[in-house]
Amino acid sequence: MFASETKVRVRYAETDQMGVVYHSNFFLYYEVSRAESIRQLGFTYADVEKMGVIMPVVEVQSKFLRPALYDDLLTIKTVLKELPVHHKIEFHHEVYNEKKELLATGRIILYFMEAKTMKRTTTPGELLKKLQPYFS
Amino acid sequence: MFASETKVRVRYAETDQMGVVYHSNFFLYYEVSRAESIRQLGFTYADVEKMGVIMPVVEVQSKFLRPALYDDLLTIKTVLKELPVHHKIEFHHEVYNEKKELLATGRIILYFMEAKTMKRTTTPGELLKKLQPYFS
Amino acid sequence: MFASETKVRVRYAETDQMGVVYHSNFFLYYEVSRAESIRQLGFTYADVEKMGVIMPVVEVQSKFLRPALYDDLLTIKTVLKELPVHHKIEFHHEVYNEKKELLATGRIILYFMEAKTMKRTTTPGELLKKLQPYFS
Amino acid sequence: MFASETKVRVRYAETDQMGVVYHSNFFLYYEVSRAESIRQLGFTYADVEKMGVIMPVVEVQSKFLRPALYDDLLTIKTVLKELPVHHKIEFHHEVYNEKKELLATGRIILYFMEAKTMKRTTTPGELLKKLQPYFS
Repeated sequence: MFASETKVRVRYAETDQMGVVYHSNFFLYYEVSRAESIRQLGFTYADVEKMGVIMPVVEVQSKFLRPALYDDLLTIKTVLKELPVHHKIEFHHEVYNEKKELLATGRIILYFMEAKTMKRTTTPGELLKKLQPYFS
Repeated sequence: MFASETKVRVRYAETDQMGVVYHSNFFLYYEVSRAESIRQLGFTYADVEKMGVIMPVVEVQSKFLRPALYDDLLTIKTVLKELPVHHKIEFHHEVYNEKKELLATGRIILYFMEAKTMKRTTTPGELLKKLQPYFS
Repeated sequence: MFASETKVRVRYAETDQMGVVYHSNFFLYYEVSRAESIRQLGFTYADVEKMGVIMPVVEVQSKFLRPALYDDLLTIKTVLKELPVHHKIEFHHEVYNEKKELLATGRIILYFMEAKTMKRTTTPGELLKKLQPYFS
Repeated sequence: MFASETKVRVRYAETDQMGVVYHSNFFLYYEVSRAESIRQLGFTYADVEKMGVIMPVVEVQSKFLRPALYDDLLTIKTVLKELPVHHKIEFHHEVYNEKKELLATGRIILYFMEAKTMKRTTTPGELLKKLQPYFS
């Protein structure tokens, strides 16, 4: 299992007139957290794209349990339960506020695809190498 | 069953550097389509809020099958399969492009809540009355 | 002078916790209105990009006089005061609500650039031809 | 003069199909930087709102000189050139990338308004007290 944590501060623009974070913005927090989790491996998602691989999101799920508020300093937990050996990678996310209340959970599935051909490919070797130690 | 359709034109700001609509923006299209489906009933979501009821999104699911592109004129189908007699309402969405290709599907669950007390409530009577004919 | 009008319905996601449209979203409305004004000429901004020309925004100005509210059906006026004969094009925008109150004004300057070389270029000939009748 | 600096990492969702940050997102960076500059004074914008004062943006201006790219770690400089003694406050912003290239400049004017009455008011006393030392 590979797990990591990232902090995100809620921006004013992310709230709506209910006075809470608009639901779709949680997917931006999940993305930020995925990017930071890859960075913690000594790699970046920008590197993945430079290698000619893109990672479109193909499926998402999310539950919103408690509202996130303006200026909240959120903790986004990101977990990879399985080594992504095929064309698919699945991230699990949890969002907590400063009171350690669980605000939301998410599950995001992305594909590895060759940018040029738009065909499915497998996890870039370098990324896989960085991940393997967490799964043995 | 209550079904309705709405058109949404993809905005430049909604694309990302993959050259396609960023996944979380589909939730904005789903919201627009829900609002228009309620309007087609002779009611508006703004009216619901004026009656002191808010509808926070509590759970979402979405699959992204094909990319939506800048300037695409999308058709968003919105379906209510069950009359929302309790505090919960569940919408099903499908997104098609002009070639009638299915781009995405979504399922959104919202609660009816009293804005003042933040307690769950049931579907406002007026909205229920508009919906009933579709479920008998 | 070339002038055109577009309608935009305010989305829930575009509001913030002040209960009004967050200021930066007006720039999305301006963009939608520019795109529709070009479409009214029998051309699309997507066509411009297909011709290898991109139009980055290089300067903006906007005043926000009255709030735009959720579900407001806004009218965005777009005016081109001068024929864009060089690498620069300047749009003027005005936003009105259904009560015909002026909510915001904007001025947006974009450049024509060759996507390949990222060098400034001039207005694509076909677009210029469509515009000329309005300036003679 | 009061000056402060904030770092913002560009998110994927903030890019567009030109492969650069969509222009209106700079206003989100400016907002984040204003909020952080107030926090550096030992105060928060959330506190201002709790005191019944809101700060709507009434006028903006921005120049975009060079593109901001995905994953860039931007530095946003925020400067207050004058003590806001009336109902108006004016911020100046500059955005730099990691190569210290100036990407954008912005000027944002906000009003202080009483949330209840929606009438203009003056800078909350506590905020003014924190700012005064920088202007004497």
